[in-house]
Amino acid sequence: MPALTDFDEFRDIAKRVNNWGRWGAADEIGTLNLITPEVVRAAVATVRTGRRFTLALPLQQQGVQTGLIPGRVNPLHTMTALNWEMFGPGAIATSDDVVTMGLQAATHWDGLGHVSHGGRIWNNRPAASITPHEGAAFSGVEKAPPLVSRGVLLDVARARGATRLAGDHAVTPEDLEAAQELAGTAVRAGDVVLVRTGQIQYYLGGDREAYSFPSPGLSLRTPEWFHARDVAAVANDTLTFEIFPPEVDGLYLPVHALDLVEMGMMQGQNWNLEALAADCAEDGVYEFLLSAPPEPFTGGVGAPVVPVAVK
Amino acid sequence: MPALTDFDEFRDIAKRVNNWGRWGAADEIGTLNLITPEVVRAAVATVRTGRRFTLALPLQQQGVQTGLIPGRVNPLHTMTALNWEMFGPGAIATSDDVVTMGLQAATHWDGLGHVSHGGRIWNNRPAASITPHEGAAFSGVEKAPPLVSRGVLLDVARARGATRLAGDHAVTPEDLEAAQELAGTAVRAGDVVLVRTGQIQYYLGGDREAYSFPSPGLSLRTPEWFHARDVAAVANDTLTFEIFPPEVDGLYLPVHALDLVEMGMMQGQNWNLEALAADCAEDGVYEFLLSAPPEPFTGGVGAPVVPVAVK
Amino acid sequence: MPALTDFDEFRDIAKRVNNWGRWGAADEIGTLNLITPEVVRAAVATVRTGRRFTLALPLQQQGVQTGLIPGRVNPLHTMTALNWEMFGPGAIATSDDVVTMGLQAATHWDGLGHVSHGGRIWNNRPAASITPHEGAAFSGVEKAPPLVSRGVLLDVARARGATRLAGDHAVTPEDLEAAQELAGTAVRAGDVVLVRTGQIQYYLGGDREAYSFPSPGLSLRTPEWFHARDVAAVANDTLTFEIFPPEVDGLYLPVHALDLVEMGMMQGQNWNLEALAADCAEDGVYEFLLSAPPEPFTGGVGAPVVPVAVK
Amino acid sequence: MPALTDFDEFRDIAKRVNNWGRWGAADEIGTLNLITPEVVRAAVATVRTGRRFTLALPLQQQGVQTGLIPGRVNPLHTMTALNWEMFGPGAIATSDDVVTMGLQAATHWDGLGHVSHGGRIWNNRPAASITPHEGAAFSGVEKAPPLVSRGVLLDVARARGATRLAGDHAVTPEDLEAAQELAGTAVRAGDVVLVRTGQIQYYLGGDREAYSFPSPGLSLRTPEWFHARDVAAVANDTLTFEIFPPEVDGLYLPVHALDLVEMGMMQGQNWNLEALAADCAEDGVYEFLLSAPPEPFTGGVGAPVVPVAVK
Repeated sequence: MPALTDFDEFRDIAKRVNNWGRWGAADEIGTLNLITPEVVRAAVATVRTGRRFTLALPLQQQGVQTGLIPGRVNPLHTMTALNWEMFGPGAIATSDDVVTMGLQAATHWDGLGHVSHGGRIWNNRPAASITPHEGAAFSGVEKAPPLVSRGVLLDVARARGATRLAGDHAVTPEDLEAAQELAGTAVRAGDVVLVRTGQIQYYLGGDREAYSFPSPGLSLRTPEWFHARDVAAVANDTLTFEIFPPEVDGLYLPVHALDLVEMGMMQGQNWNLEALAADCAEDGVYEFLLSAPPEPFTGGVGAPVVPVAVK
Repeated sequence: MPALTDFDEFRDIAKRVNNWGRWGAADEIGTLNLITPEVVRAAVATVRTGRRFTLALPLQQQGVQTGLIPGRVNPLHTMTALNWEMFGPGAIATSDDVVTMGLQAATHWDGLGHVSHGGRIWNNRPAASITPHEGAAFSGVEKAPPLVSRGVLLDVARARGATRLAGDHAVTPEDLEAAQELAGTAVRAGDVVLVRTGQIQYYLGGDREAYSFPSPGLSLRTPEWFHARDVAAVANDTLTFEIFPPEVDGLYLPVHALDLVEMGMMQGQNWNLEALAADCAEDGVYEFLLSAPPEPFTGGVGAPVVPVAVK
Repeated sequence: MPALTDFDEFRDIAKRVNNWGRWGAADEIGTLNLITPEVVRAAVATVRTGRRFTLALPLQQQGVQTGLIPGRVNPLHTMTALNWEMFGPGAIATSDDVVTMGLQAATHWDGLGHVSHGGRIWNNRPAASITPHEGAAFSGVEKAPPLVSRGVLLDVARARGATRLAGDHAVTPEDLEAAQELAGTAVRAGDVVLVRTGQIQYYLGGDREAYSFPSPGLSLRTPEWFHARDVAAVANDTLTFEIFPPEVDGLYLPVHALDLVEMGMMQGQNWNLEALAADCAEDGVYEFLLSAPPEPFTGGVGAPVVPVAVK
Repeated sequence: MPALTDFDEFRDIAKRVNNWGRWGAADEIGTLNLITPEVVRAAVATVRTGRRFTLALPLQQQGVQTGLIPGRVNPLHTMTALNWEMFGPGAIATSDDVVTMGLQAATHWDGLGHVSHGGRIWNNRPAASITPHEGAAFSGVEKAPPLVSRGVLLDVARARGATRLAGDHAVTPEDLEAAQELAGTAVRAGDVVLVRTGQIQYYLGGDREAYSFPSPGLSLRTPEWFHARDVAAVANDTLTFEIFPPEVDGLYLPVHALDLVEMGMMQGQNWNLEALAADCAEDGVYEFLLSAPPEPFTGGVGAPVVPVAVK
């Protein structure tokens, strides 16, 4: 098995998008630094109608996980109390519930500690700083500032005239340009970019096997596009985020390595963009206020999120 | 043990605040209906600086639960993969995590199914419609529309000149009036009201026993105040939401019954209002854009939430 | 859907095998009462060589559950500490683990509370006495006395000259007689009978779908056979215990109802009898000392078990 | 913090009790090799009356864990189905349950992977061979052969004329000798020795804080005593197994290191020896058949167990 850095293209891109030290040696949040109060104000200024969209899948046993990724279990929701008359017969009765789930099982953010290569995570921290007893000592998801910014939908499927992209389609910078043109707004610093492939239609239609694999997704060549625009974060509507199986034989998850380790940019997966995309197609407005704070698990390398878009 | 309805005061208030049928017999979201696009636009219009505040506590084993409420366990975060070179030596390494937690263990919303009395939950649904194998068949937290609205902080502690309210202080309608005057804005339809007692300082200072009990909280007399103003939801910075031990001997959790069962209004607990309150005290602005969508657990009677305020 | 008692055959057998009240109205352990000190001594007397066999499957994510039974999740094993130098660098390092699993996910006993019909569980207790906050108030698995007795293997597959029984084979009393003859020992009061179908070969061979369904298993006519012999408990090597799909159209899980509710006899499932059966075939001895105490979960309606046979 | 091997006494004992390589370089079960068929036959021969004793604590939320050991959570038992008429109204109803628990939370065995020192676990395997995605690659608890042997109770508390030993009492080899004399049988190869301190009376009496700490327990000097007799395993009735706080300042958990890493001998904790001890005191017989197989979690570094003694 060749190491990531045995691949020339990967190594070259890694150098170009690397942000280590850019916000100081102690930084733990990477490109979330790019969301400034000005960015937030501009995001708020995009709201015109007050219509709201949730981009989260319901959390349930019949979730998107198929067992492909060991240990990433779908939410198991059980009751610990059920109309329990805790204070005696006739008194108020309470119901309570509990869950066990993979933090990356459903609609989620990859935290910056989710992947490492060469023994390093974001900002040159040792990968060994992640431990079971405390999770990620650096860049845990609980470190993220409240994630509110301008969201821009890049509807690649629509820009290409497809209901959904084919399973072997790597979303290229050219695809992003075309979708940006459709969106009618330029991606800029601090934005959260949502890239739509349409792949999640499989899951919504009941076929989670087809959803998981093979999957269209971001190409190895996209991190530079996002880096050039100083995007704060990127999310899409697939399980794997990047195209899978990979573009280059033997080069696994290079986009993860470039985004998370090199740039320090969080990635979102399993975001349901269907309703939002339909609305954008209808009114031609592809920008919105996006609120998508990760659940702040201390030391988390991933986190569930309920992204809400307001137009 | 007397039943809830054996208490005259409770029974009378229950009649006055009851919203069953108001949005139709099929309604499952209660007062969240009051958040209209107009309300959202007005909420957005409160943003001036772009400053953001999270109101969520970190999710961790050392959370607010002490064992007082059986089964409501603090988050147990463990790793299912740790820098795992899944694709072979030298390849990218992934870390993954999983959690087990009570849905109401930390910063959360009580769903409308959280309590019942007289065998009924919100909108006259049978309490028995909640089951372990599917949770709440009606009014599960996944039914909530994206919860974004105007937030108003009613800083009762500050309005009373206290760092925090005493453990036996029931927050009255008069307290809410005083805090509203301090806030300089009238609570109105669709608002989410955050009531600050300061009680959470105990937990933040390391004493979760003192935090849990005894606790200041909302009085039996407050639901009418919220009902009169058509508030969408109310949250505060305590474990019990309402004063505990209760105001009337033997009358347990009456506010829960009035808010959730009768009015159909979600309640938030364990919200950390300290940083937001300090900011409001400084600039005198107590209104803001609030995004606080519950994690959409199918059939959930409660849900973690990461409330974010933007000013 | 007809009720269980709409089926004549079921109703008649139910009357004949009913043990309610046999050990008093307060009894919570049913046929485990039949294991007396004499039975234990006789069980011990069967040991000749000291060879030991475990009948438990390993507990792991790739367990026998396929999602067919909602919520019955395979064991998820994760680490909470990993070579953690808790007391400082250079000191001893500890590793700790945690599990989430269905109590009936792998090799297990069905507790007497596992099923109800007509609103009743074993010994005429109300089914409603089982609640999420305390589990089974009566006949929880923690009530079982230490389960050690004589085990007898009834190798039905071998007695029929089959590697494994066909998926539509209902094990009849005649099959049990034939296997008893092969065993060379008569089943008697207090015995734990292990019925081998060979079905578990599918799982051991990697095909858990084939293992789960369709499955050979005990016929509706077997409970009387066990009842006549005062057997203490019965276990086999299938997921469903009884034949599934059922023998009589619309009559689901009648054997569960007869064994657990009517007779008060625990059932074991997913027991790996392959190695033991090979040994019995070789030496012709089908009786042994069996130790199989359920894990004593308070209020449990099922329990993992590590059955050990000693010959 | 000095390393374990900075302590002369520890280092010297470690050399003397080390069993690495004794059963070959590939061995994963250590002293369990000492339980031969002859040992099992002799164990069976101790049974005279057929009386059975369970040594397991019930598995429940109010278990022995107090939060002292991070992540080692008490069993959380919840229902996933409750009298669910899965096949339609009137049909059989099923109840199912699920648990989350630390594998070492209650009555358990420490697996050989539970501790490491100097980067090594039992039989010179690298500590790094334990990972979250597969647990212990070597010497996981699922590797243990069926653990049935002769048990011998060394009732140190009784031998010293105490109800229970004081919290600062280190159980010495001399204590073991005295208890062996009381037992009237010599500990020999393949035995499982149960050492009674009486400490568990605190937990049984409702005081889990007092139970946990300070605790009497085995002295640093006991591993040699067990090694000299080729004992297969040792268990006792405390949370910490060895005396805690430790005998030598700064020398933490040396007995764990000696037993598990050096000797390859499993340790049992939180075993309830009270009823068994009372019986032994009454009839003067301190030997018995013991069945105590660990639940076979693949890769487990610890495992729940339901030890059963038959006299």
